[in-house]
Amino acid sequence: MSTLFESLLTTDPLDNYEDIDKYTTHWLPKIEQYRQNLVDAIPEKYTVELPQSTDKLIQDQFNAVDYLYKEKLLTPEEFAITDLPTVELVAKIASGELTSVEVFEAYAHRAVLAHQFTNCAMELFIAEGLKQAEERDAYFKEHGKTVGPLHGVPISLKEHFGYEAKVTHSGYVSRLDNISSEHCVTVNILEKLGAVFYIRTTEPQSLMHLDSYNNITGFTKNPYNLLLSSGGSSSGEGAVVGFGGSSMGVGTDIGGSIRGPAAFSGCFGLRPTSQRTSLSGVGCSDPGAESILAVLGPLARSVDDIDLWMKSYLNQGNPWELDSSCLRMEWRDVAKPKPETMTVAVMRDDGLVRVSPPIRRGIQYVVDKLKQNGVKVIEFTPIKTDVAYKLINKLYNCDGNAGQRKVLSDSGEPLGKLTKWFLNYGKGAKILGISEINRLNIIKHELRDEYNKYLVDNKVDFILSPTYNNVAPHSGEVYNWSYTALWNILDLPTLVFPTGLYQDPKVDKWTEEDLKYEFRSPLEQMENENYHPDQFIGAPIGLQLSGKKYFDEEVVAAGKTIVDILEVDLFKNIL
Amino acid sequence: MSTLFESLLTTDPLDNYEDIDKYTTHWLPKIEQYRQNLVDAIPEKYTVELPQSTDKLIQDQFNAVDYLYKEKLLTPEEFAITDLPTVELVAKIASGELTSVEVFEAYAHRAVLAHQFTNCAMELFIAEGLKQAEERDAYFKEHGKTVGPLHGVPISLKEHFGYEAKVTHSGYVSRLDNISSEHCVTVNILEKLGAVFYIRTTEPQSLMHLDSYNNITGFTKNPYNLLLSSGGSSSGEGAVVGFGGSSMGVGTDIGGSIRGPAAFSGCFGLRPTSQRTSLSGVGCSDPGAESILAVLGPLARSVDDIDLWMKSYLNQGNPWELDSSCLRMEWRDVAKPKPETMTVAVMRDDGLVRVSPPIRRGIQYVVDKLKQNGVKVIEFTPIKTDVAYKLINKLYNCDGNAGQRKVLSDSGEPLGKLTKWFLNYGKGAKILGISEINRLNIIKHELRDEYNKYLVDNKVDFILSPTYNNVAPHSGEVYNWSYTALWNILDLPTLVFPTGLYQDPKVDKWTEEDLKYEFRSPLEQMENENYHPDQFIGAPIGLQLSGKKYFDEEVVAAGKTIVDILEVDLFKNIL
Repeated sequence: MSTLFESLLTTDPLDNYEDIDKYTTHWLPKIEQYRQNLVDAIPEKYTVELPQSTDKLIQDQFNAVDYLYKEKLLTPEEFAITDLPTVELVAKIASGELTSVEVFEAYAHRAVLAHQFTNCAMELFIAEGLKQAEERDAYFKEHGKTVGPLHGVPISLKEHFGYEAKVTHSGYVSRLDNISSEHCVTVNILEKLGAVFYIRTTEPQSLMHLDSYNNITGFTKNPYNLLLSSGGSSSGEGAVVGFGGSSMGVGTDIGGSIRGPAAFSGCFGLRPTSQRTSLSGVGCSDPGAESILAVLGPLARSVDDIDLWMKSYLNQGNPWELDSSCLRMEWRDVAKPKPETMTVAVMRDDGLVRVSPPIRRGIQYVVDKLKQNGVKVIEFTPIKTDVAYKLINKLYNCDGNAGQRKVLSDSGEPLGKLTKWFLNYGKGAKILGISEINRLNIIKHELRDEYNKYLVDNKVDFILSPTYNNVAPHSGEVYNWSYTALWNILDLPTLVFPTGLYQDPKVDKWTEEDLKYEFRSPLEQMENENYHPDQFIGAPIGLQLSGKKYFDEEVVAAGKTIVDILEVDLFKNIL
Repeated sequence: MSTLFESLLTTDPLDNYEDIDKYTTHWLPKIEQYRQNLVDAIPEKYTVELPQSTDKLIQDQFNAVDYLYKEKLLTPEEFAITDLPTVELVAKIASGELTSVEVFEAYAHRAVLAHQFTNCAMELFIAEGLKQAEERDAYFKEHGKTVGPLHGVPISLKEHFGYEAKVTHSGYVSRLDNISSEHCVTVNILEKLGAVFYIRTTEPQSLMHLDSYNNITGFTKNPYNLLLSSGGSSSGEGAVVGFGGSSMGVGTDIGGSIRGPAAFSGCFGLRPTSQRTSLSGVGCSDPGAESILAVLGPLARSVDDIDLWMKSYLNQGNPWELDSSCLRMEWRDVAKPKPETMTVAVMRDDGLVRVSPPIRRGIQYVVDKLKQNGVKVIEFTPIKTDVAYKLINKLYNCDGNAGQRKVLSDSGEPLGKLTKWFLNYGKGAKILGISEINRLNIIKHELRDEYNKYLVDNKVDFILSPTYNNVAPHSGEVYNWSYTALWNILDLPTLVFPTGLYQDPKVDKWTEEDLKYEFRSPLEQMENENYHPDQFIGAPIGLQLSGKKYFDEEVVAAGKTIVDILEVDLFKNIL
C-alpha cells in the first residue's frame, strides 16, 4: 500500500514546510508543557486503573464503552445522570430534581474516563466547569428558574473554538502561544443558554483528515475499538460524545468532520446547511475563503438532543445578532413525519469507492426496515459524484496551500502522512487564478441545481448514504472522504445516525464475488484493501441522511422517525 | 473636468478592447438591425407626436411625466387603470372588474409613450403580451379564478434576464446573437404567478454604470427631466416604472443598479438581501464570482406593491425549488410599525462625497417629518466608509477585468467613458490572487460585523441615507456610487423611496459656505462641481432606508410608515 500511496503523492512540493531543528528546539518544549498541563488537569479521583497497558488494549481492539458498563466504572447515580438524553436532563434540572453540580460531576467523571481510554481531550478544566455549575445552581436557587434551555448541560467543545484566556491552536503547533482574547460566538451563545464547559477536544493536524493525529496530543482512539481511529476532524468530539463523556458536543465540518467522527464513534451528528450556525472566532487555515464553507453543528446521543441544540442555539441564541454571516433563519418546528409520507432515495455506492461489507449490511438493514414500515425507498444513481469530488478537492486548496503552508511552516512541525495526502488534493500547491475559481464555482452551482432538481422533480425528501466507505478506520489509513464531502459541495443538511449495528467479523466479510472485483481507481483499491474483517471488531455502523438545502428541520425530524423504526437507543445500557 | 477625469484614469491598460474595424464591419449592421426591430415593434396607435424635436426637449429639460398628465396622453380609462397600485389592480382583476386585456392595453400604451420620451426599451413585444393577457382572461373565464397573485399584471423586465427565444445581450454588442433557450428562473416564476410581459428595458455597457449609455440603444433619459439620465444599471426599469409604463418592474443591483434608477426616476426600488431572489439565467460578465453578489429586486410606484412582489415571488414562487443558490426564506408578514417604535439613524454624508443641495434638503425634510411623527432619529457617523468603498471597488474587478474584457473585446465595441472609469476601479486590470481576495473577504466580514454590532448594540432599526450624492445625473457624468455600494458590500436590504420632493433651482443652491468647502478628494470635486441648480429642474429626490441583513420585511414595512408620514402618493395625479 505504501508504494501506491507514494505514487499518488507526487504533485505537491512538500519542501518549505518542515524544519526539524526549529521544531525540536523551540516548539517541542511547548508541546511537552502543553501535554503536562493536560496530565495535571486530570483529577485523580475520576480516573480508573486501566485493565492493561494502552498498547495491549489497542492490540486487543478493546471496547471501552462495553467495559464502562460491564465494570460499572460509574456509580449508579452517575450512570442515571449521564445516560439521560439532554432533553430529559434539562427537564430534570429545570424541575429541581437534579442540580447542575450533580450533573456536572457525573459528566466530569465520565469525560475523564473517555479521555483515559481514547485520548480525546486537548484541554480539561474541570474546576472551572464546576464553578460554572455552581453558578447555575445559585441562579436557579435565587430566581427559581433556569438561565436558558441548556442550563447546566455539560457540553464538550472542539478545541479550535476560540475560548477566552485559553490557548487555541487548532491542532497547529505554531499556534501554541495563541491565547484567545474572547469566546467565539458559538461558545458565547451556548454559555448564555446555560451550558457548562470543562473539556476541549482533539482535532488532527491541518484540520483536514478524516482521522485524528496531531503533533501536540497524538492520536485519538475509538471508544468502541481502541485499535481504530475516532476519525476527524472533530476527532475528540466523536470519542467523548460516543463514550457519553458530555451530554452534547460541538464540531465543525467542511468535508465530513462532524459526520465521520459521529458515525465512527456511534453517535448522532448534524452538518447543518452553511451559515445557519456561526464560525466566527473559530480557528482555521484559510479565513476569508468562500467557495466551500465550513459548518458548525452538534453531536449527541439522540436525535431529539440534536433538535434541542439547534432550536436553542438558533431561536434563543440569535447568532445573526453576533455574526453578520449567519442567516436569520429560526429553527422551525417540524413534526416527526409518518413513515408512509417519506420518500427516501438510497445511494448504496457513490461510484467512486466501494463500501466495505459492514456498511453494505448497514444500508441494506436500514432500507429493509424503512420499507417494512411503509417508507417509499427508491434507488439513487449517483449524479456526477466524480465531478463533485474532484471539484471540492480543487477548491479546498485553491490557494495552493498558502494558508496551510503558513501555519505549518511557522513551527516547522513534521507533516503527518495524511497531511501530505491532503496537501496534494486537487491541484496541490498550484495556486488557482480567480477566473478558474469562478469557473469551478459555476460548476458547483450547476451541480447543486442538478441535485436540487432531482429532489424536487422526483419528490424525493431525503437521500440515505454511507458516511464513509467503511466503519471507523485504522489510524493513518483513511484516504477517501467522497461520501461526506459530496454533501459539503452540495451544501445539503446531513444527519449522521447510528443504525444500532456494529461490525461483526463473522458476518462482515468480503464475498467470493467481492474478491473478483476490479477496482475503479487506486484510491478505491487502497481503501478496500484496508478492510480486513477481524480488525474492525465492534465498530459502529453509522449512515447519513441528507435533505434539501435549508431543510435541516425536516432532516432532523425524519431522523426521529428512522430512529423509531430502527429502535436505536444509545441509553439502553443504563443499569 | 475632463483633465481631472483623465488624471484619474491611469491604471488600466485599455488596449485590447476596442477594434473599430471589426465593430463597424461585423457588429454595426447587427446593431442597426436590432434598432430597426425596436422601431418596427412600436404600434403606431400608441404613439404620440412629440411636441418638439427630441434634442429640443432634452435642452428644455422637458418633464414627460408632467406632460403625460397635462396633455392627457391617455384616455381617462387608461389613466384609471395605469394609476392604480398593483395591489389594487390585482384585486380588480380578481373580482372581474377589469380584464387582463384592458389592463394590458392601457399599460402597453403608456409604455410606448415612456419609450418615446426616454428610450427605455430594448425590446417591445406587445402582440405577445396581448396574447398572454388574453390567455389570462380565458383562464379566468374558464376557472373563475386567477392563475396567481400577479394575474394579468404588466411587468417590465431588465433586458439581461434570459427570455426564451429572444436575444439576451446584457448591453454587450458581442452578445447580439445570443438567443436564450429558456426563461431565467425569475421570469419563469413571474409568469407562473400570472404576470404579462411586453417590454425588456435598457442597461448600460458593462452593466456597471450608475448611468444609461450602451452602444446598442444609446442613452435612456429621465422621464422627469429629459436632460438627465435615468441612471443605471437598471436604466430602463427606472424610466418605465417612474413614468408608469409598467405596473411593476424588475432590476438587479450589485452597486446601486436598482436603487439609482428608482431614486432618479422617482419610484420605489428594493435591493433585497442577497440570495433571497434568483439571478439564475441572468446575464453578467463574471458568473461564478462570489465575493460581491448581485441581487434581483422589484421597482414599483408604491411600497405596498414592493411588498406584494416580494411576498408573491417568495411564498408562491418558491425560488429555492428552481435555483439552489436561493435561500429558503419565506416572506414574513410584518406589520407596519408605529412611528414611535422606530429608531432611525440618519447618515447625511458618507464622509466621501458631499451631497448636493436638493439631497441635503430631502434628508432634512424627511428627518423633520419623522421626528414630528414620533420616530426616534439619531445621527449616524459613517463607519469606515472609505474602507468599504475601496474594498468593493477592488472586489468588483478582482479578476483584472478578465470577464469584462472578454465580452467587450469580442465585438471590439468602443468603450464608453464610464466603462473606462469602471475598468479602473480598485486595482483595475491587476488580477488579484486568491489569498489577497480572501484577505479582502475577511475585511468585508469585519465591516459587516461592525455595522451589525452598531445596529444591535444601539437598537437602531434602520439607517436613512442619500441614494447618491445628487439627484439624477447628466448622462456620462456619474462617477461615484459610494452611497449605494455601501449597502452592497454590507449586504443590507435597502429600500429606495421618493420623498415627494423634486429639485427646485430656486431653493437648491450651494450656499456661500458651501462654496468655501475644501474638497476631500478629486472624486468629490468632480461630483460636486457637476451640480448646477438650473440643470436639474424637477428631478425627484429619493432616499434609501437600510435595515439589518435578512430584515427585508421590516425595511419594507417601515417604508410604509415613512410613506404615510411623508404622504407620498405617486398616483395622486390621477384625473
